[in-house]
Amino acid sequence: MEKISVGVLGATGMVGQRYIKLLENHPWFKVTYVAASPRSAGKLYKDVVSSKWLIGEEIPADVANLTIQDANDAKLAVGKCKFVFSALEMGKDEIKALEEAYAAEGIPVVSNASANRWTEDVPMLVPEINYSHLDIIKKQQEHHGWKKGFIAVKPNCSLQTYMMPLHALIQAGYPVKRMIVTTLQATSGAGYPGVPSFDMIDNIVPFIGGEEEKTEKECLKILGKVDGDKIANAALPLVSSTCTRVPVIDGHTACVSLEFDLPEDKKPSLEEIEKIWTSYKSVPQELELPSAPVHPIVVRHEENRPQPRRDRETEKGMACVIGRLRKCAVFDVKFVALSHNTKRGAAMGGILNAELLKSKGFFDNL
Amino acid sequence: MEKISVGVLGATGMVGQRYIKLLENHPWFKVTYVAASPRSAGKLYKDVVSSKWLIGEEIPADVANLTIQDANDAKLAVGKCKFVFSALEMGKDEIKALEEAYAAEGIPVVSNASANRWTEDVPMLVPEINYSHLDIIKKQQEHHGWKKGFIAVKPNCSLQTYMMPLHALIQAGYPVKRMIVTTLQATSGAGYPGVPSFDMIDNIVPFIGGEEEKTEKECLKILGKVDGDKIANAALPLVSSTCTRVPVIDGHTACVSLEFDLPEDKKPSLEEIEKIWTSYKSVPQELELPSAPVHPIVVRHEENRPQPRRDRETEKGMACVIGRLRKCAVFDVKFVALSHNTKRGAAMGGILNAELLKSKGFFDNL
Amino acid sequence: MEKISVGVLGATGMVGQRYIKLLENHPWFKVTYVAASPRSAGKLYKDVVSSKWLIGEEIPADVANLTIQDANDAKLAVGKCKFVFSALEMGKDEIKALEEAYAAEGIPVVSNASANRWTEDVPMLVPEINYSHLDIIKKQQEHHGWKKGFIAVKPNCSLQTYMMPLHALIQAGYPVKRMIVTTLQATSGAGYPGVPSFDMIDNIVPFIGGEEEKTEKECLKILGKVDGDKIANAALPLVSSTCTRVPVIDGHTACVSLEFDLPEDKKPSLEEIEKIWTSYKSVPQELELPSAPVHPIVVRHEENRPQPRRDRETEKGMACVIGRLRKCAVFDVKFVALSHNTKRGAAMGGILNAELLKSKGFFDNL
Amino acid sequence: MEKISVGVLGATGMVGQRYIKLLENHPWFKVTYVAASPRSAGKLYKDVVSSKWLIGEEIPADVANLTIQDANDAKLAVGKCKFVFSALEMGKDEIKALEEAYAAEGIPVVSNASANRWTEDVPMLVPEINYSHLDIIKKQQEHHGWKKGFIAVKPNCSLQTYMMPLHALIQAGYPVKRMIVTTLQATSGAGYPGVPSFDMIDNIVPFIGGEEEKTEKECLKILGKVDGDKIANAALPLVSSTCTRVPVIDGHTACVSLEFDLPEDKKPSLEEIEKIWTSYKSVPQELELPSAPVHPIVVRHEENRPQPRRDRETEKGMACVIGRLRKCAVFDVKFVALSHNTKRGAAMGGILNAELLKSKGFFDNL
Repeated sequence: MEKISVGVLGATGMVGQRYIKLLENHPWFKVTYVAASPRSAGKLYKDVVSSKWLIGEEIPADVANLTIQDANDAKLAVGKCKFVFSALEMGKDEIKALEEAYAAEGIPVVSNASANRWTEDVPMLVPEINYSHLDIIKKQQEHHGWKKGFIAVKPNCSLQTYMMPLHALIQAGYPVKRMIVTTLQATSGAGYPGVPSFDMIDNIVPFIGGEEEKTEKECLKILGKVDGDKIANAALPLVSSTCTRVPVIDGHTACVSLEFDLPEDKKPSLEEIEKIWTSYKSVPQELELPSAPVHPIVVRHEENRPQPRRDRETEKGMACVIGRLRKCAVFDVKFVALSHNTKRGAAMGGILNAELLKSKGFFDNL
Repeated sequence: MEKISVGVLGATGMVGQRYIKLLENHPWFKVTYVAASPRSAGKLYKDVVSSKWLIGEEIPADVANLTIQDANDAKLAVGKCKFVFSALEMGKDEIKALEEAYAAEGIPVVSNASANRWTEDVPMLVPEINYSHLDIIKKQQEHHGWKKGFIAVKPNCSLQTYMMPLHALIQAGYPVKRMIVTTLQATSGAGYPGVPSFDMIDNIVPFIGGEEEKTEKECLKILGKVDGDKIANAALPLVSSTCTRVPVIDGHTACVSLEFDLPEDKKPSLEEIEKIWTSYKSVPQELELPSAPVHPIVVRHEENRPQPRRDRETEKGMACVIGRLRKCAVFDVKFVALSHNTKRGAAMGGILNAELLKSKGFFDNL
Repeated sequence: MEKISVGVLGATGMVGQRYIKLLENHPWFKVTYVAASPRSAGKLYKDVVSSKWLIGEEIPADVANLTIQDANDAKLAVGKCKFVFSALEMGKDEIKALEEAYAAEGIPVVSNASANRWTEDVPMLVPEINYSHLDIIKKQQEHHGWKKGFIAVKPNCSLQTYMMPLHALIQAGYPVKRMIVTTLQATSGAGYPGVPSFDMIDNIVPFIGGEEEKTEKECLKILGKVDGDKIANAALPLVSSTCTRVPVIDGHTACVSLEFDLPEDKKPSLEEIEKIWTSYKSVPQELELPSAPVHPIVVRHEENRPQPRRDRETEKGMACVIGRLRKCAVFDVKFVALSHNTKRGAAMGGILNAELLKSKGFFDNL
Repeated sequence: MEKISVGVLGATGMVGQRYIKLLENHPWFKVTYVAASPRSAGKLYKDVVSSKWLIGEEIPADVANLTIQDANDAKLAVGKCKFVFSALEMGKDEIKALEEAYAAEGIPVVSNASANRWTEDVPMLVPEINYSHLDIIKKQQEHHGWKKGFIAVKPNCSLQTYMMPLHALIQAGYPVKRMIVTTLQATSGAGYPGVPSFDMIDNIVPFIGGEEEKTEKECLKILGKVDGDKIANAALPLVSSTCTRVPVIDGHTACVSLEFDLPEDKKPSLEEIEKIWTSYKSVPQELELPSAPVHPIVVRHEENRPQPRRDRETEKGMACVIGRLRKCAVFDVKFVALSHNTKRGAAMGGILNAELLKSKGFFDNL
């Protein structure tokens, strides 16, 4: 099979770099186009990035010698790549307009940015959970009069630590009424330079701008349903979250307490919950998508796990690792969940979205 | 006024060292007696401790030259000091027996250890909250037939981050029904050598042995009442906690969500809560005890505070610093609280207990 | 004595904040004027700084309510303060021009910036070492036609870890021929936001732009002599340095190997060296300047000291703390030296310079 | 080819675990025997290690179910494995005796321990440098009357950061006279629990017990020659080192200044040095040993590299990565070198030694 040529928008930033590294030997996709801000345009990728290359030792050789294009001009990408990953870092409105410009040029946009997460006809995908939201893409194209282009996004990295376990329970017939969550988030989530070391030595910061709102709201869209020409949010669970920043490179941890929306005698036991989680599989697993984890949820029994440095690479950084499942004195159960914020939570999650789109035919005839 | 001579049991450990440092220039107390394990006994304090002195540059000069005594022999302390601070590190049963042995010798024990926290006639003091529990001491002495000796303890360090704010609300007429708490705790809480650096570089550990149980239970004794010859626990609030270890030297942070035990229209507004907290004062403030904070609760308005390194020294490390007070989507309100775990939460908290005891006459006639 | 009113240029940056904190209760000086970039000008200091206040809990109350002035306009400071501390953060040429502009307005400039370190008639002061360089100020004023204004600077923070020990040896008759130095420097040296946390978690960076050059050269001016209308550099020692950044908040450490410029039988023993260091005193000690350490050099004997967190506050952060003095297999002796980079190495070092200038009459008649 | 069965002594410690992980899919060797202290003996490996497994997520499945044997009884290993890796953690004399006991039983010992490093007839191998020291093994066997067993060791991890670059220069005709080295060493070098986090948060420790002596001496044995029935040390270079501990998980960094033992006009240029390094190959590369790096020395040109987290995995953790090659103001040249202390510097270095021994026939006829 010939690989599909792809572009990366915002290719010089931390998430852009991560895309380029993860796509280095991808079986389906090949990076042929890199775009960034006008001041980088016209330069070789390696010349702009080498002194601030963040991901492992080396820039992939074939990308190193690509000339960076101006990301602001969508027309430049036409004919150079079939679709683009958007890792743009600019104002929300600018990103929204720009992603639409690429789609209008017939170039699908698989986005990491938050700009289009709340656009009603844009699916916010976690492939294991809401693959059915792909149905909205046709409506999106109709609304805009786009023939081939479209926009699909992924949710914020913080809630990916617990969305699959939550979905697994709901799907198994155990709806959740409310959740209280505290996250301990890695600094890579803030990009580079990101969080100053002055704030992360002998310190934590109990605040991440905008993060709690995302965590509390995005959950409901992900669990929603396509309803006519938009995605209708789920009504539950009610989520309250506190998001903190801790001195960890990669791997967000969430401490979760949850209450089922069920009478006491219908609630699942800890054993049932564990069984639901360990047997959880979905479309990406059935389709054997290249970036899909074999086991999307991994349950650990050691009393002091999961830990970011020890567990983040589980299933190539694509699993949700859960530990400390136990009774909650206030709600029903509590547990600690961890996922790799720059793999599952960012670039590799985006790639999984693209793999799902590809396998469902959305990149045919481009 | 002549200073009262005091002893420190477990004087070579981290908490013991902290006691010795904090008592260096204390206006009322003077360390005249240091005791530790038999293998240190007979040596000069400085010779045992100098290579592992953890608290600032220098060992206080007058203590440096004291000869360490065997902590296991309570009789040795008689006549050498009026009362002792217990920072013993050994098995729970051994500590319990040993603290009783000192009390039996007529030497009051002001303890940091957890061994006697659940002894029914031993007060577990946070002076601002339950000074009235001092009344149980007389009963304790009667039970044992002790004339002068007694035992008073302090609670675990983790819950001191939010006990005063909680008490302030209850006292103001706003009882709390349930709380969900996640703590991010400093490594000094585990003593020395304590947590390996291998676990605290690019990592957090979402587990501290025994800590969650203490956090969930001790709250109820602290809020309890003297009832005949024991302290009767409070019935509320129900607490669920997750305790994590983070790479911070000093300063425990707690992310707290709470629900009032009141009808919706009787619940306090955020403004009322803040007012209650900032005006909170109690007996230690009225008595102007030397280690008492002038403001036991300090409320900050910056969106990214409190932070351990920036805020732990507030009010000499004796305040509870609160930030991010806001509505909770699931319960009523949530906030982030911080206190200095080795000052308020350990040695300086113990010293404040001793100051309260002294000012209430419990060290008279020793 | 009425306090002398002083201004702080670059008052909102990390070093500027440090000046303001350290001057809070200064016996001689009082901050009455704060200046920063035009975009901060006109605003209250507290409004600009509160969310990024880096130094302890609180902004000193009297400075919090000062209105920030435009630092680029030296005339604004006339009549508002007698002299200024320069903690400007801008291009070297701009700083040089601006510091001269203040001096031209009759306002002495005590600077932290590197812009004027190599100006031939500007003294680069470490008060214990080269107080005699004050003599050049008169020449400087003549050159420029300034009546009252002048510029005095301090050296880079990194070499302050070992300049006093080096000077002590030379002064005692043991000239040093060559030194090889590796520094492990704290992140606060890079200001705020400064070094990204991504670079300081599970990592060190073996490079600090421009630092090695400064370390190797500034030494020679500090040890130089006033020669007519300029300061003539010393010829020795030859210094080679490697400067690295490590995850430490405050406190630069230097590992130093040195060779004496003496025949083998004239070289000092380790005992002699230690004696020279522990008895080292100079003009700031004789004058009892408020910020002068009583013991400028402190020698420790524990095998694992000095350590940044344990030793940086020695003598209020103004001492050089030395440990591990031992024979070097290649040169003569080696040792580890530490000093507080934002106290001795920055703001408090600048204040000590100002105290020296004041006590020598340079602020009379302003 | 059938895999050779191997044992790991000290299998439960950090280095032992690393051996087991690295041997998981080794093409030549298979772990069939694990031994540790008597208190672990008789238990399943997984039961002893699971709560303190330090290396990645999972214990290799085939080792997890091995029963741990008593490492103190060498006879137990006979027939269970062909040779052993020694990662013993006990007193030096005990290790020496025990390693000899295994050899006496006909079981070669490839050791990580320092106990036999200075035994005159035991080779201390860095395969790229001193493969010719294998010749001493025959003498060693004669001395002891061993038929098949023998002992081979590897040097300390700290000097492996710069031994290959040093050797490359010497071999190319540029002998080195003296070196001054400062190391910044990762905490994993101290095993587990190892360095307390209290010492590694906002801190560095400028001392590692015994490390400087090893660094200064072992170099000379490695560069020595087999001379009759012992290895004669090289006379040069003279080395002076300062070893410090920094908050890094894996990857030792060394800042090296060196002087050639050559007249000024015979010294190599920086370009020549770089060429020597980048073209450096030796026996392990020629033999294509499975764990050998293709490029044993990797030179980087970014001004801020090598960095531990970014560069330690270069060539599977087996390369020496060099950066910042430049003139030294005191000696001839200086540079920064990095290697992975628990891969090249410990377990994987031991495995490379075993691969060399195997390919040279030392494991035939066992």
